[in-house]
Amino acid sequence: MIPERGFPQIEFEQRLEKAQRLMSEKDLDVMFFCTEAEVRYFTGFLTQFWQSPTRPWFLCLPRKGNPVAVIPEIGADCMERTWIEDIRTWSSPHPDDDGISLLQETLEELSGGSKKIGLPMGPESTLRMPFQDFKMLQERLKGYEFNDATPLIQKLRMVKSELEIEKISHVCQLVSHVFETLPEWLLEEQTEIDVFRRFKIECLKEGVDDVSYLVGGAGMGGYSDIISPPKDKNLISGDVLILDTGCTFDGYFCDFDRNYALQKADDDVRNAYRVVYQATDAGLEAAVPGNTAADVFRAMNRVLETNGAKGGQVGRMGHGLGMQLTEWPSNAVFDNTVLENGMVLTLEPGMQFGENKIMVHEENLVIREEGPQLLTRRAPEELPVIS
Amino acid sequence: MIPERGFPQIEFEQRLEKAQRLMSEKDLDVMFFCTEAEVRYFTGFLTQFWQSPTRPWFLCLPRKGNPVAVIPEIGADCMERTWIEDIRTWSSPHPDDDGISLLQETLEELSGGSKKIGLPMGPESTLRMPFQDFKMLQERLKGYEFNDATPLIQKLRMVKSELEIEKISHVCQLVSHVFETLPEWLLEEQTEIDVFRRFKIECLKEGVDDVSYLVGGAGMGGYSDIISPPKDKNLISGDVLILDTGCTFDGYFCDFDRNYALQKADDDVRNAYRVVYQATDAGLEAAVPGNTAADVFRAMNRVLETNGAKGGQVGRMGHGLGMQLTEWPSNAVFDNTVLENGMVLTLEPGMQFGENKIMVHEENLVIREEGPQLLTRRAPEELPVIS
Repeated sequence: MIPERGFPQIEFEQRLEKAQRLMSEKDLDVMFFCTEAEVRYFTGFLTQFWQSPTRPWFLCLPRKGNPVAVIPEIGADCMERTWIEDIRTWSSPHPDDDGISLLQETLEELSGGSKKIGLPMGPESTLRMPFQDFKMLQERLKGYEFNDATPLIQKLRMVKSELEIEKISHVCQLVSHVFETLPEWLLEEQTEIDVFRRFKIECLKEGVDDVSYLVGGAGMGGYSDIISPPKDKNLISGDVLILDTGCTFDGYFCDFDRNYALQKADDDVRNAYRVVYQATDAGLEAAVPGNTAADVFRAMNRVLETNGAKGGQVGRMGHGLGMQLTEWPSNAVFDNTVLENGMVLTLEPGMQFGENKIMVHEENLVIREEGPQLLTRRAPEELPVIS
Repeated sequence: MIPERGFPQIEFEQRLEKAQRLMSEKDLDVMFFCTEAEVRYFTGFLTQFWQSPTRPWFLCLPRKGNPVAVIPEIGADCMERTWIEDIRTWSSPHPDDDGISLLQETLEELSGGSKKIGLPMGPESTLRMPFQDFKMLQERLKGYEFNDATPLIQKLRMVKSELEIEKISHVCQLVSHVFETLPEWLLEEQTEIDVFRRFKIECLKEGVDDVSYLVGGAGMGGYSDIISPPKDKNLISGDVLILDTGCTFDGYFCDFDRNYALQKADDDVRNAYRVVYQATDAGLEAAVPGNTAADVFRAMNRVLETNGAKGGQVGRMGHGLGMQLTEWPSNAVFDNTVLENGMVLTLEPGMQFGENKIMVHEENLVIREEGPQLLTRRAPEELPVIS
């Protein structure tokens, strides 16, 4: 069953209500957002047009009442099809004043007594507008205090609704199937580039909207880099291939990988695969409400360390997942986020082995009261050898 | 012929040399960048990993000597395969200090007497790092002046090398073919979603690396929105369909659209098509060295206005193109950028007609001494009707 696209209005009303409750606690008058995920979260505004860096987009969220979109005219028609009613536009690009006056007026109008404005300024946030424009806005709003709204928006977005989980689950299932049937066609392709292209086509045929993210590569006996584009290099017997993909359905991501050996595999790479597989098992056991993201990290890390993994500096072993390829929290020693029903996580244990080789494994799950529910179909227990 | 991937080292050395000449003129000691396009422009570092918002990435460019990469450890292997030799890494994510101390030290080390640091802060730039971290950096570098490097980087990136043009031209040709053969398969597909999916598959089969951007849609007698994702709605006789795509090859974009009518088309939409087609002709005539982007706008706008177009508030009629879907300059009344040999532009005249319908046409070209060279294969002169 393909999930319905979009969300009923009640979903957005609930998100708004939760946000406004948190704003009251923090005494924030108004928040504003300039990033794709946040604007979409509160409006449903879904467009790839964000890939053009030219125009800024804003959403203002008052402590009482409905959100106000402050956007370039080119997006008005698309925004009008969301539940947002108050849409204010300007003709953009406009180098002297690219929406800043309109944003300023809107913030002044929506702010009440406290003169406290919130926006995300903390970890993993970006300022998707020219810094000069932000400075100008701050100068014009001299009497106002700008507060970091990162923890607030994290808290909201980390816990997914059932409709969000349905979309993530759907894309995880589609891509699981593509990974499972990859051994049937892999040897028809020559180079890494060919394999990546075929994989994208198979995912699209299966029903994903976009293969936004596909990285990985192959190396003799193992790979050493997991973020690169494919090389124009033939796959040969003894190569170990990893494909790590973030495909989307209706704006929601999966993010997981699979490993394959071509024709043969040495013991050390088979063993590394077993270790990260077992680490994932340990991560699954720890992924329960009340535990922290750090607990999940430690559970996985223990398995890696007792099995001779040499570490690795990627900083974490999985993360939140949803509207973005990676979201909060991080499965990392520093992240004490308490897991809750409805959080969607990746488990991504990685280890070094041999001479500069790495092995990475990844699954996606949702935290449930009764224990974690896998959204991906579990990888094979042993490194698959394709011949 | 498929262009070779990547660039020879001399290309990066030339980009650096030009940058350093401009830095001397502006008395900038050092520049730093935190955005994908700028980091890639000077290094060749190509990865989709930027889609994860978690980690910041930095590149420092001194007035003398080679660039220094300040990046998360997870990217070291990928960066080591570029021409960059000085690669400084930290274990990221690291919420207390996500590369800021390392960036600070590097900037201090690379800056000479003037204590002037440049970074892009102007139109179309974003700060792809937490604002709090940027503020902390500014506070720690108290004696330093932060200057806007937007005009400098614009000047460099706007004029493409022959190797860059080759990549853009290649992807334009691939996608031109897909658009030309679309009438052969369009009626096999049912819904807008089906058509978009098939189009992506055809582009991949043809040889593009990614269909990063595909927007558009269909409407009876014309469409009213050009930035939306496809709808789950059957295409029917009388619909006018637009597909606007940014596909990539080796990190370089095409960006153009095509229009099609299904089975039949009214006079007013056929006429609107002719007008934007003629406006494009006028834009092509004006797209010569020495003219400005505003001249190109005015040439197109004159044709639209004398043919009864009702205007439209998208703010411009085309833009630069290359490593990003949209780049400087803008074909707009405010943009007095003087066109030069090697600039790659889109011409994108659009007009309103009838009741809330729009018609948009787009081609890609490179400015040459002897006149513009189309990179796309010209759209049909008359609105194609598929039956």
